[in-house]
Amino acid sequence: MAGPFISFLTDFGGETAPAICRGVIWSIAADARILDLNHGIRRHAIRDGAFLLSRAIGYLPVGVHLAVVDPGVGTDRRAIAILASRGDILVGPDNGLLRPAVRALGGIVEARELTNTELFLPRVSSTFHGRDIFAPVAARLAAGLPFPSVGPLIEAAALIDLVLPVPVARDGGLDSVVVFIDPFGNVRLAGGREDLERVAGPLATGRPLRVRIKGAKRPLDLTWAATFGDVPPGTAIAYDDAETAGLAIAVNQGSAAETFGLALDDIARIEPA
Amino acid sequence: MAGPFISFLTDFGGETAPAICRGVIWSIAADARILDLNHGIRRHAIRDGAFLLSRAIGYLPVGVHLAVVDPGVGTDRRAIAILASRGDILVGPDNGLLRPAVRALGGIVEARELTNTELFLPRVSSTFHGRDIFAPVAARLAAGLPFPSVGPLIEAAALIDLVLPVPVARDGGLDSVVVFIDPFGNVRLAGGREDLERVAGPLATGRPLRVRIKGAKRPLDLTWAATFGDVPPGTAIAYDDAETAGLAIAVNQGSAAETFGLALDDIARIEPA
Amino acid sequence: MAGPFISFLTDFGGETAPAICRGVIWSIAADARILDLNHGIRRHAIRDGAFLLSRAIGYLPVGVHLAVVDPGVGTDRRAIAILASRGDILVGPDNGLLRPAVRALGGIVEARELTNTELFLPRVSSTFHGRDIFAPVAARLAAGLPFPSVGPLIEAAALIDLVLPVPVARDGGLDSVVVFIDPFGNVRLAGGREDLERVAGPLATGRPLRVRIKGAKRPLDLTWAATFGDVPPGTAIAYDDAETAGLAIAVNQGSAAETFGLALDDIARIEPA
Repeated sequence: MAGPFISFLTDFGGETAPAICRGVIWSIAADARILDLNHGIRRHAIRDGAFLLSRAIGYLPVGVHLAVVDPGVGTDRRAIAILASRGDILVGPDNGLLRPAVRALGGIVEARELTNTELFLPRVSSTFHGRDIFAPVAARLAAGLPFPSVGPLIEAAALIDLVLPVPVARDGGLDSVVVFIDPFGNVRLAGGREDLERVAGPLATGRPLRVRIKGAKRPLDLTWAATFGDVPPGTAIAYDDAETAGLAIAVNQGSAAETFGLALDDIARIEPA
Repeated sequence: MAGPFISFLTDFGGETAPAICRGVIWSIAADARILDLNHGIRRHAIRDGAFLLSRAIGYLPVGVHLAVVDPGVGTDRRAIAILASRGDILVGPDNGLLRPAVRALGGIVEARELTNTELFLPRVSSTFHGRDIFAPVAARLAAGLPFPSVGPLIEAAALIDLVLPVPVARDGGLDSVVVFIDPFGNVRLAGGREDLERVAGPLATGRPLRVRIKGAKRPLDLTWAATFGDVPPGTAIAYDDAETAGLAIAVNQGSAAETFGLALDDIARIEPA
Repeated sequence: MAGPFISFLTDFGGETAPAICRGVIWSIAADARILDLNHGIRRHAIRDGAFLLSRAIGYLPVGVHLAVVDPGVGTDRRAIAILASRGDILVGPDNGLLRPAVRALGGIVEARELTNTELFLPRVSSTFHGRDIFAPVAARLAAGLPFPSVGPLIEAAALIDLVLPVPVARDGGLDSVVVFIDPFGNVRLAGGREDLERVAGPLATGRPLRVRIKGAKRPLDLTWAATFGDVPPGTAIAYDDAETAGLAIAVNQGSAAETFGLALDDIARIEPA
């Protein structure tokens, strides 16, 4: 029979730190199936981690999800675990990182603070709670530890929340915002294809669109495309990004973020041209 | 007992996209042993993927091999699975990517088109068939789905083929071509050490060789070496690349591609100096 | 029941070479749990590999540890396996790479030379012993091969040794040396927080420290901090690096190595300011 499932996302960057955590997990839950989701989250970028985790989690098996983007490590921010309505348990810092993923799974059943130090490694450092607190607790939960053993209940309202922006339909276009920029410079906007189609009608390859960035001198004129393959290198497109299931702007074989000077939180309106 | 084996090669680059596919696989074949072969193939470089897969596959356990380098995703290119004579099943787009690996395994037993949409994820995007079609079909096959269930037979002759170049021995040298350049700038030529030795005699460390690149002003003069360790930094060598089992040109601690201005498909003749 | 544990560290860099070795391992020990510890060790940097392996190994399950940083591949350096006192077996080249990790585990029980060619792949290349010798031997040991089968005993004194520097307490400060620089430019010094506290008293966030680098014109003035989060971007700190359990110098969101021109083996004295 297959072992329990644990997904694992961090901003640790290097290879050794996540590997040590996997070693800790396998020392406790020897048969765990560990899936490294992403360890290249921008350092301390809680929202990037929350965004990618929330977009991926629906495709993962039910299990334990360990996520550590934790600029507050060593301070008095809480360590938490959240039982979600699909039956998954999310483990990480109480800084909003886990909330959008829990919402994507259908909401909170209950949340607990990780206060049971018997579940931690014997020596807890001030800078590497991924290894010393979160990985061992996640491993014990995966191995069958009853959820209440980790520590006392916290009311959902007392958890730090993080709400990813949602777009607003207005006057035949979509008021949106830049929510994520991947390492290739592809720019993700809040909202999905269906949001834009509701106000702008069907999106077919070649349909001209205009993106107005607040503060920019000129709007971006581009066309909708199903895939990069539809346009020549260097051409800008708007498209439905399958990986993160949402509206995106890209330059084929280039960086849309650089080409258009786009940054996180830029306010953008997308509308038919 | 160990679970079924699935190797996985793509040009997805980032960490999240392959991870989501692994999540899909483990949702279907919970005990699969998944081996990430390479997700850093140059974007859309079908031939690079075909080259590396064909060179690695002989060292892998018999199982399912999932490969996605798919510039035609969303167009009408076929999705296929090929049963190879060793008992492996290869799954991916019908663009030549799988063919050299199938040849390395001894040839095609039968090929089928992936048309049974019941095996796919419920919602199929136009840009992420790795997640929506190829990964779930590969997982079901690994979990024991009978091969004919994926869809109708395709004649081998109707599949897109891709033949990696082979060298030609002529006048005491080897007419070859640049078939792969790795991220470090090491340059692989078609053919192996034994091909060159057949026309040029035994290759011992220190033996002078000459490489003539078509269109270049001057030939490259270099020496044969068994390993990088045999020469000082900055020195160019020809050697037998173990990882890909073939002739290669490298500059110790440098990039042979940059140093000599070499590019894919450059025609090269290698001969005793 | 969970399969045997194998950790795996190399300087192979690219993705395909370690993947091929994992394929070889799973061909022999189908149920092995393989943990990729780090494949981004600086090319041929035996000491970097030794340092990271020795720091990580205590967090890993008991098992087989395969490590290949092997500038002498193809020469007459020995291939070895070492049984350590915790019950682990380390497999790799006899160039010092394994010794600090064995010491961290409590010392050598016995060491053997890998001479039993029946355990290797049928064809052994001159440049890829990771695949042809070390991976198959590690896999067979993980699968239960008795340790003496690998080859004859070697006296511990006959093995190549590598001793990582230790700091010396003197006159209220610590004479140390740069032992590792990570890819982000964080600089690790020999010794741990407890070594410095023994001579300098308790280290609290904000305590001023001075680092004198031999040959540098001016000392570095910095403050102790528990975490990066304690200081603004661009600020230099000394801290206790949890991942490698030792004293370190970093610049928040910068490279301490670049900022201060630090290199491996630089002699450094750290003392209260």
